[in-house]
Amino acid sequence: MKTVRVGLLGFGNVGSGTYDTLKMNMGKIERETGVTFSIDKALVRDPSKPRRSEAPAAIFTCDAYDIIGNPDIDIVCELLGGIEPSTKYMLDAMKSGQHVVSANKAAIAANYPELTKTAKDNNVEFRIEASVCGGIPVLSCLTSVLGANDFSEIMGICNGTTNYILTQMTDFDLEYADVLKVAQEKGFAEADPTADVEGLDVANKLSILIALAFGKYVHPKDIPTTGITAITKDDIAAATARKCKIKLIGKATKHDDGSLEYSVEPVELPAAHPLAGVSNEFNAVFLTGNAVDDLMFYGKGAGPLPTGSAVAGDVLEIGKAIAKCEACDK
Amino acid sequence: MKTVRVGLLGFGNVGSGTYDTLKMNMGKIERETGVTFSIDKALVRDPSKPRRSEAPAAIFTCDAYDIIGNPDIDIVCELLGGIEPSTKYMLDAMKSGQHVVSANKAAIAANYPELTKTAKDNNVEFRIEASVCGGIPVLSCLTSVLGANDFSEIMGICNGTTNYILTQMTDFDLEYADVLKVAQEKGFAEADPTADVEGLDVANKLSILIALAFGKYVHPKDIPTTGITAITKDDIAAATARKCKIKLIGKATKHDDGSLEYSVEPVELPAAHPLAGVSNEFNAVFLTGNAVDDLMFYGKGAGPLPTGSAVAGDVLEIGKAIAKCEACDK
Repeated sequence: MKTVRVGLLGFGNVGSGTYDTLKMNMGKIERETGVTFSIDKALVRDPSKPRRSEAPAAIFTCDAYDIIGNPDIDIVCELLGGIEPSTKYMLDAMKSGQHVVSANKAAIAANYPELTKTAKDNNVEFRIEASVCGGIPVLSCLTSVLGANDFSEIMGICNGTTNYILTQMTDFDLEYADVLKVAQEKGFAEADPTADVEGLDVANKLSILIALAFGKYVHPKDIPTTGITAITKDDIAAATARKCKIKLIGKATKHDDGSLEYSVEPVELPAAHPLAGVSNEFNAVFLTGNAVDDLMFYGKGAGPLPTGSAVAGDVLEIGKAIAKCEACDK
Repeated sequence: MKTVRVGLLGFGNVGSGTYDTLKMNMGKIERETGVTFSIDKALVRDPSKPRRSEAPAAIFTCDAYDIIGNPDIDIVCELLGGIEPSTKYMLDAMKSGQHVVSANKAAIAANYPELTKTAKDNNVEFRIEASVCGGIPVLSCLTSVLGANDFSEIMGICNGTTNYILTQMTDFDLEYADVLKVAQEKGFAEADPTADVEGLDVANKLSILIALAFGKYVHPKDIPTTGITAITKDDIAAATARKCKIKLIGKATKHDDGSLEYSVEPVELPAAHPLAGVSNEFNAVFLTGNAVDDLMFYGKGAGPLPTGSAVAGDVLEIGKAIAKCEACDK
């Protein structure tokens, strides 16, 4: 059986979730793909730090270039977050002929054209399912089985922290600041929640969704973005009185002349809209194609294992393609 | 640009929807896949019959074997319905080295082991996205990007006719027979609705979902199946009083010992369950994986274009693989 060798740049929540997903399901994966996958190396800052995954200490390295450019590593998974050095790491891996999987929405949204062009020029795969809505397989569908559609609209609830805050404000008639405080205590919101509550995280994800659904690149800083910090208990009560729910929505619409309109902002959705029922930490993407009509994908947009499912799914797809190509060559 | 040649067995709703989907979006498809697709032949009973698609008369043939075994046709799309001669047509196409796409849940569910084995033995693709829930891309995800999961449960609202009837009974406090009559007049239910209302159509789809999610084949006749014909206005009122909705659910659960439990039957779902909000002609599949957690796919399960989207999506995936293999060979 072909062994595909994987290196992880980062072994935090997403890295360990990817490791655990592959480890716990390897028997099934081998049976169904005919390929085995080995995580040979993982980049960490401190190899001695206790971790949630029981990974052997021997795989840890503090040098990214033990993984990038290493001819024994077929697939590099970039799971660090932040724009740099992540982008440079991905480009260097591609240039050395390694396939790249990334969960890093900020780096991908900031540098999408260069990353996709470099992957193409070097004839390597670049898969990014985990970068938008964690475990929800919307990106893969956009670029594969939904490819026969021309899309007119895409709308997403793509940030679990803000959806949790808005849901709690709605269900328990609370003010924003009070819910945020509890969310931070419970670990549902970061100590510095700016990227989430100001909509910047959603703008990164919308940039990626626009690129895949409409084939156009829009830098996240060019997406008009309003977060949820100004939403009050009274706003929500008024929406509820109108049988609506307020959701933070990343939205892009293609007009008949081909031009795109896009924004990230709180939107009042009628209660009957499929996105209105998406509560708490759940995410969903609702899209409209000229053949498939309305479609919605719903699931967990974050967490070690849901995000690990997406990274591991991309690794599997690349592994199957590697095995198939080698069979072709024989 | 590589041209991939396609033959359609059947040019009814699904065949013409596939034709229209590919025709209206070919510019986008060519740009994104680098491949062009030509529907060269379509099997019909009467070439002179007026049709909803404006296809040139020259593509019509009354002989299935103008398409099956024709060395100029790369992909055969079996869109006829019924178990035979559809199964024989698919097997013959595979044996002659043609890739097969099918929307035919009855034939696939009845003969899944033989069809998948024959595809494998002949090293051809066999893709069946359109056979379950029309445009909703759940099958492709199960066999690709969700492949790193071990699934514990799958539940689906997979039949638009029965979901429409149950929704109308619930929303307007009506009896089954009265809604069925209106649905038949509007074309939402067949003159002979047995396969839909007795749950047989859902059993076929559940058989396919079980095969892909759990890797085990269960013949649809071995799935305990109860339809919706015995559901009364009073049953629905009682469920509503309990804040529940009655839905026709195809469900399979994997127990800890690996054994499967499965059924098709009306189920009372709490109103907060994501499937409870799926109304009228919409379909949805809800599944639970040990990494991805809960996931739901929602969309249109029938209709020429949504089903055409799924058939065309499968055709595109095969076309891209053909082009890639040829590039490998050079």
